[in-house]
Amino acid sequence: MPQNTSISIILVRPQMGENIGAAARAMLNFGLVDLRIVAPRDGWPNQKAIDMSAGAFDILPPPRIFDTLAGAIADLHKVYATTARRRDMVKPVFSPETAAQALSEKEKTGFVFGAERSGLENDEIALCHGIINIQTNPEFSSLNLGQSVLLIANALSQTTQSHKHEAASLPYGDSFPVTQDKLEEFLIRLEGTLEDGGFFKARDLKPTMLRNIRAIFTRNNLSDQEVRTLHGVVSAMIGQKKSR
Amino acid sequence: MPQNTSISIILVRPQMGENIGAAARAMLNFGLVDLRIVAPRDGWPNQKAIDMSAGAFDILPPPRIFDTLAGAIADLHKVYATTARRRDMVKPVFSPETAAQALSEKEKTGFVFGAERSGLENDEIALCHGIINIQTNPEFSSLNLGQSVLLIANALSQTTQSHKHEAASLPYGDSFPVTQDKLEEFLIRLEGTLEDGGFFKARDLKPTMLRNIRAIFTRNNLSDQEVRTLHGVVSAMIGQKKSR
Repeated sequence: MPQNTSISIILVRPQMGENIGAAARAMLNFGLVDLRIVAPRDGWPNQKAIDMSAGAFDILPPPRIFDTLAGAIADLHKVYATTARRRDMVKPVFSPETAAQALSEKEKTGFVFGAERSGLENDEIALCHGIINIQTNPEFSSLNLGQSVLLIANALSQTTQSHKHEAASLPYGDSFPVTQDKLEEFLIRLEGTLEDGGFFKARDLKPTMLRNIRAIFTRNNLSDQEVRTLHGVVSAMIGQKKSR
Repeated sequence: MPQNTSISIILVRPQMGENIGAAARAMLNFGLVDLRIVAPRDGWPNQKAIDMSAGAFDILPPPRIFDTLAGAIADLHKVYATTARRRDMVKPVFSPETAAQALSEKEKTGFVFGAERSGLENDEIALCHGIINIQTNPEFSSLNLGQSVLLIANALSQTTQSHKHEAASLPYGDSFPVTQDKLEEFLIRLEGTLEDGGFFKARDLKPTMLRNIRAIFTRNNLSDQEVRTLHGVVSAMIGQKKSR
């Protein structure tokens, strides 16, 4: 089981250091080494995390700390949110196993875990391409952070070990999966253009409408070329206006 | 996930109550309810075990306590020992997944976990039909009792869940997958708008560019609501022009 550097584990606003340590231990158990932490409640480094990691932090490269999830995933190609609650968002839902089967060596992939009680915010889930649901006993479904990371890391290693039957893979040709920051740039431009065009007439619905638009464009693994095409589409439409 | 009464989890000489609690929580997470404990160091009941179980002991039937492993497995049909160390014993070795696949509803099956440090004695392993090896990072393989039980319980539930190889599913909520004709209608409108906007400057490239745009919007299983949203996006952009 070689170290896997194309998979990132991202903890968002973790509260207890113990849980960060358990997550670090669990990921390293299955060869994952890229840990990113967004706004840890008690700052970083955290002695309780180190104590709970069974020595994992002596082996792992230092975790990277970010202020926002958007910053933490900027360089990744595909991002999954793990969440227990149902959301009213049109996002594909994966099991750990089906997400593992969809892994591609060409894509840097991130798995996002929310805070212990509050989980991920809707705007954070909107940044992700898909949702991972770990199916547990409906009458006793409490999984803590370390357990969730362990189950996902295990599923990922299962699939990379056995010759994975590649799920329908996307032939990108000469282009590459777009990185999150380029996609974000496009979505922000789109939002600005729609704002100018009076799209958000019902102001209170704007956040929901934005999330719905995001869901359309984050779901389908756009390539860098396709995002350039979409920029061209927007330019053609608004340029039409400017030129007259 | 119905309660599974044909699978037993058997802890042999567990030392820390916390680990017993974590094991109980992990098994119940995946619907396993038969816990047996052989010679727990600190006796039974154990408050630390109950504290660590996240309420699992309120739901589980009381664990049965035995003096010996032989007594604990007397009524079972098949028994697996989980062990990290190699043994000089000719026993079939399973992964959690292959052991899960070998489950039979007609056989009561037990999974045996040794003490935290010392593991299982050779005489105890000799009582078992096979060995389960959880493959972890060879440079960091420490799994505690709760983690081991979690991984095995999860593997068992994967196999008993009938829909295990379902591909990612998309929760459409109140909306529906868009029909082809509605999607086509949108794409034709988009093409017309782009034509007006001078998007297809290089005429010979138009067919390729159209295919690329089509690829963006056909790949992601749009819902009817999302196609209406996209119509709104286009209207906002070109309406901007018309209104000025």
